[in-house]
Amino acid sequence: MAKILDGKSLRDKLLENLKTEIDGFGVKPSLSVILVGNDPASRIYVNNKKKTAEKLGIISTVFTYPEDVEEAVIINKIDELNNDKNVHAILVQLPLPEHLDKNKIINRISPNKDVDCFTFENYGKLASGEEPAVYPCTPNGVLLLLKEYGIELDGKNVAVIGRSNLVGKPMGLLAMKENATVTFCHSHTKNLKEITKRADVIISATGHPVIKVDMVKEGAVVVDVGIFKDENGKLRGDVEFGEVLGVAGFISPVPGGVGPMTIASLMLNTVKLYKKQNKY
Amino acid sequence: MAKILDGKSLRDKLLENLKTEIDGFGVKPSLSVILVGNDPASRIYVNNKKKTAEKLGIISTVFTYPEDVEEAVIINKIDELNNDKNVHAILVQLPLPEHLDKNKIINRISPNKDVDCFTFENYGKLASGEEPAVYPCTPNGVLLLLKEYGIELDGKNVAVIGRSNLVGKPMGLLAMKENATVTFCHSHTKNLKEITKRADVIISATGHPVIKVDMVKEGAVVVDVGIFKDENGKLRGDVEFGEVLGVAGFISPVPGGVGPMTIASLMLNTVKLYKKQNKY
Repeated sequence: MAKILDGKSLRDKLLENLKTEIDGFGVKPSLSVILVGNDPASRIYVNNKKKTAEKLGIISTVFTYPEDVEEAVIINKIDELNNDKNVHAILVQLPLPEHLDKNKIINRISPNKDVDCFTFENYGKLASGEEPAVYPCTPNGVLLLLKEYGIELDGKNVAVIGRSNLVGKPMGLLAMKENATVTFCHSHTKNLKEITKRADVIISATGHPVIKVDMVKEGAVVVDVGIFKDENGKLRGDVEFGEVLGVAGFISPVPGGVGPMTIASLMLNTVKLYKKQNKY
Repeated sequence: MAKILDGKSLRDKLLENLKTEIDGFGVKPSLSVILVGNDPASRIYVNNKKKTAEKLGIISTVFTYPEDVEEAVIINKIDELNNDKNVHAILVQLPLPEHLDKNKIINRISPNKDVDCFTFENYGKLASGEEPAVYPCTPNGVLLLLKEYGIELDGKNVAVIGRSNLVGKPMGLLAMKENATVTFCHSHTKNLKEITKRADVIISATGHPVIKVDMVKEGAVVVDVGIFKDENGKLRGDVEFGEVLGVAGFISPVPGGVGPMTIASLMLNTVKLYKKQNKY
């Protein structure tokens, strides 16, 4: 029976420690979030981030714009936030509406305030094994979760499923930095089961029910980054949880696994940027 | 018996076409190279690049500096080249002496003139699946060689051995962009043979004799990026060439495989940057 990678407990522990740290700061760390349009999921995410930040004593400001906002308005806001020394971290909530140039907007964020490692500069550092300002929230959350349970990646075979820029790719790059042998799998991968079956660690981030019990090696670590609703409206992840539980060595549940760690990462990153800007 | 991936012939063909194109340009493309110190291999590489460029009608200027040059001198030179509209491409020959901050110097190059995709900005674009100004020379040369022989990477299992920022990592990222399933192997990889044995394409870039015949699947494509001298002073690559020749479907020789393609890539990249700057 697999051990549960309990992201909720670890989040609570990390945020409790973080709150104590923030309590000791004179000026409070500040996170600005830009939210465009009416995507209901985005609104929920942003609200949760704001609530968590406020509980910790992080000043959180959300700038909301209508779906049809002009690009220049967003660019000007980012410039203003970049120049405001009371703002330490900036997040543009994705996805953005089609008419906006995502790369232009993201890369307008000062790399020093880029709280999710979105800019090409930080991403290039990450990819080349250098230190970006902070690591991307979700992959960083996964690493923290693995470390909490004493799971080392050095020399391990890691299969990452999904190659998005938000999760899959930076996840694999971070695992490589930890000296794992990483295989990047995706929609064009022809023999997924063969690859996952040999993996010591499976990290799945597709939003589809791709990981069945016969794809998992006995004792493997299974990290489920996917989250979506099944046909009965119940939240689930990429992994056939109940069945894989009997085979894996460790497994992260959905919900309660990687999700809480992503938000914990965002808070940790905000404080990290704050400290860098204040030369702690 | 494997088919030879003949980099020399392809280089000649590509450069002949490129020369014809350059002959038609009014202003000639110009490549500036910065060379620091007395590393004999670097001097040979830079000389070869210069000679090839000149044969094509590319203006090639090499700025050489003593081993103990001050960083500011290099930075100032790069600024001058960035601002010179008659310079289209800039290359800093690596390695640099220890006392110089490699990242600072490299990232001083304008991303528009960054002929080897060295800057974090271009590297970040490459890593995130966007289009950098140009692709890094060696991985791009490998892709061109594979394409010449009709070898598609889509859906293939590709094992990249070596995770350097110059070759292994960008090579794998490019292969991912071509929809390959890529496994990044390196010094911490525990079961290299198991991984290479299943690969449709092996790309080895270690500078060590790592690929033996029993590690190669019948019919696999074997690309050898390594080049070093064996104990008898003879140039060889990472691959046990004679033996693997009998098993592989395609194999690149050393010398005469990837090496000539790297230099061809540098010339193609210079002209690509030239055309972008001149809005061709």
